[in-house]
Parts: sequence; C-alpha cells; structure tokens
Amino acid sequence: MTPKSVSDAKAALLDISGVLYEGDTALPGAADALARLRQAGFPFRLITNTSRSPKRMIVEKLTRLGFEVSAEDVVTTASVACAAMKADGVKPYLLVHPDLLEDLPDQAAEPDAVLLGDAAQHFTYEKLNEAFRILIEGGKFYALGKNRYFKGASGLELDAGAFVAALEYASGAEARLIGKPSPDYFREAAREIGADPATTLMVGDDVEADVLGAIEAGFMAALVREGKFRAGDEETAKKGGAHVAASLEEIVEELLA
Amino acid sequence: MTPKSVSDAKAALLDISGVLYEGDTALPGAADALARLRQAGFPFRLITNTSRSPKRMIVEKLTRLGFEVSAEDVVTTASVACAAMKADGVKPYLLVHPDLLEDLPDQAAEPDAVLLGDAAQHFTYEKLNEAFRILIEGGKFYALGKNRYFKGASGLELDAGAFVAALEYASGAEARLIGKPSPDYFREAAREIGADPATTLMVGDDVEADVLGAIEAGFMAALVREGKFRAGDEETAKKGGAHVAASLEEIVEELLA
Repeated sequence: MTPKSVSDAKAALLDISGVLYEGDTALPGAADALARLRQAGFPFRLITNTSRSPKRMIVEKLTRLGFEVSAEDVVTTASVACAAMKADGVKPYLLVHPDLLEDLPDQAAEPDAVLLGDAAQHFTYEKLNEAFRILIEGGKFYALGKNRYFKGASGLELDAGAFVAALEYASGAEARLIGKPSPDYFREAAREIGADPATTLMVGDDVEADVLGAIEAGFMAALVREGKFRAGDEETAKKGGAHVAASLEEIVEELLA
Repeated sequence: MTPKSVSDAKAALLDISGVLYEGDTALPGAADALARLRQAGFPFRLITNTSRSPKRMIVEKLTRLGFEVSAEDVVTTASVACAAMKADGVKPYLLVHPDLLEDLPDQAAEPDAVLLGDAAQHFTYEKLNEAFRILIEGGKFYALGKNRYFKGASGLELDAGAFVAALEYASGAEARLIGKPSPDYFREAAREIGADPATTLMVGDDVEADVLGAIEAGFMAALVREGKFRAGDEETAKKGGAHVAASLEEIVEELLA
C-alpha cells in the first residue's frame, strides 16, 4: 500500500496530548505550527479521549500554554456521546469525573444506561456497583474512551479502559466506544469541517488509537515521535500505511508545502 | 461419558455459600448433613472463593449458623496463595479486604507482585493504581478469585474478578488464579485429606466454577439446586458429567448409602 503524501491532505485532525503539549509543557514549535495552519485557512479540528476535563478547561489549558484556540476547534467525546445517547433515547448513569458534568445532561433519576469516562479517584466501589446493576439488567453502555493508562504527574495512571473492562467482564455487556479509535468519532470531527476522510490527515502520538485507528476508519494518518511514542511504533505505523514525522511542526511544513 | 455414581465417592469438597448457607441463613438440613458426614468419618473439606473474611470469621459464621466446624475443616484461598507466593519468592502488594490481612504475610515495603482479593469498598483508584504500577513493571499477579459478582445484602455486588479484569486489561499481565476453578485449589484441598481426585466429589451451587471446574481438574462433581443455581444449569451440569441434587442433605444420603 502506497500512502498518499502528507501534502495531499486537505484537512487535519490533531490529537492534543503528545502532539500539542506533554504534561504541562507545550511541545517545541507546536503553537506556531497551529497558528500557521489557521492563518493558511487549512481546516482542522483538535480531538482527544481525555475525559477528566470539560471542553472549557481543555481550551483554557491550551490558551495558557500559548495556543490560540477556541471552543469550536475542539471536538470532545462528551459532545459526541450526548448526541449518541439522545439518538438512542436513553437516560444515562454518569460514571465520570465531576469536572465533565458541565458538558453532559443531568443525571437521570432512574437511569437505564451507563456513560463511563475517566473518573479517576471518583471510581469508587459504590459507583462501580451502581453502574454494574444497570448493565446486568440490560442497560446500554457507552465509554468515552478505552485507553489503558496514561502518564500522569506522579507516574502511570489507570485510564477509563480499565474500568470499562471491569464492568464488561462482570456484566457481560459490551461498551460502545465513543472516542478514538471509534470511526464515528473521527468522522464526526471531519463532518464538522466538511472534510472527506480520504484526504483528511489524523496526527497523533498513539500508534494504535490515533494512527492505525484513523487508517481503519478510512483516513490518512501520521505518527509524531513525541508523547507516548516508543521505539518500534515507527515500523508499526509505516506497515499500516501511515507517515511518521518528528513533530507537528514538521507535518505542518508538509501540509502547507 | 457415564459418571460414577455419587456413592462411589470416598471424599468430598463442599462449597460454603449456596451449599451450607445462603446470605445469613443455614440451608434446610445442611447442618445435620455435615454432622452426619463427620460422624461417619467421611473425609471432607470446605472450600470457598470468599476473600472478604479470614478463616477465623468463616468458622465463626458457620458456628453461629449451627454448623459444627473447626479451622482445619476449611481450606481458604489465602492459605493456598501464601504457599504459592512463598514458593515463587515474591513480596506481594496486598490489594485485599483489611479483614483478610490476618491470614496473609505483612505488606512488603517494596513489593514486586500483587495479590488481589475481594477488597469491596477498599478497591480505590489509588490502590488500583499502586497495583497497576507493579504489574506494568513485570510484577507477578495472583488472584484469590475471578468471580464476576455475587448476591449481597443490598443486591448484586461486583466480585474480585471485575478488578482482576481491570488490571489485566491495563497492564497486559495475566493473573494466576488461586481459587476455584483453579485445579491447584481443588487438588490442595484433596491433598490435605489424602483423597484421590478421581473419587472425590466436589459439591457446589455454581455450575461453572464449582462443578465444571472440578470435573476439568479430574474430580467428580455434583450441583445443588440452591444458592446461585438457575434453570438451565442442571442440563449444563449433566452434559459435563456431573450429578444434580436438591441439596447437600440429598447428596450426603447417597454418599453414606
């Protein structure tokens, strides 16, 4: 399979953590690269499986780190989940981080579904039990992400996927994944900017969820050697038909060439 | 496959919850049946995946419900785990219910393995993270049970298996199961009474973990129509070469016939 060249892309989806910043530091050249994309009128959206923060806080953090962004630039899993749950006509039990509640409907009095995000220390036995009882009665299960872990301030931390696995194992229910690498999520972001997946480049640091996931969904993809990138990922990405670049800066050079 | 008849068995392993009692009530005839086994000098052991209570409390509860039992009658997963971890030369992080600590070694200062039991509300995000970090560094993983859920006082509750699944998914480590249906656990109980698995009858209310698990391990098995027994289990048990009886009372009749 010969991938199109990066310069063939007419739109871009950018992962946030590991592409724009890492921890609490902007990656070198990333803010300038994003500004150049915008100045060139190149269509893009920022996408992320992070579910500890509402869209408002994601934009605030990016702004604090020197990125010029607004709420419209970001497509969160919470907003996509809201649409999916509304379409399904369900009333979810919200097993999510309290900070995320501002992006979600009110907690239903008699929930018949479960929405799970990265609730961090709010994953308690009591709350997991409540979710489990809804699922074993046949309730629908929505997961904002199924990521295994991420690098936090004090070391590796369990991400939402671990708790999705716990509830799936115990209840026999299968979660519908809202975030990456769900094709629906990539497509919703592309739809917002009127982009054709075949000429939209997904840029990420996670070879599985970002890069191979996007290609599976019919997108072009590029892996950056930053964030959670590890030796060996480069070969995996190339085998899958993706590009590999040092950074967002390098990719923007090519996109605007 | 024609199973031996129950009266061919020369020893018995009895599950506790669902065979001797349910919730806080002794099952009809169970205390008398156990007393008859003992009076007849018929070798038996009580086995259980419960890991919320130490052996002392298991014996206390049985005594309170009218069963004549002593600590030697019970083989717990904790004691089998201690032997396994000692043989492996590991220092475990103890992700268990505090009540179980009296049956386990002291928490190691620098653990290189994880022992997981049904910690109930003591499954916190912080503790799960600590366990996860040991496992992702290559630490060995021991699970007292992998049961999905059980019927508690206020409804169904998540059992240890859900949290085993969470840590396995996130870390890629695979837990070594200590309790049922691990063949090692059945065999250790049989070894204690000098019994041959081929003529030892496992009696339980869980068609998968108790009955099919025991047969898989080379034992005879009987399912009782009590505890978590559900319509359909009877056929599953018989297909697997097991006997089915109304209760322990009925089985003891046959064992002593």
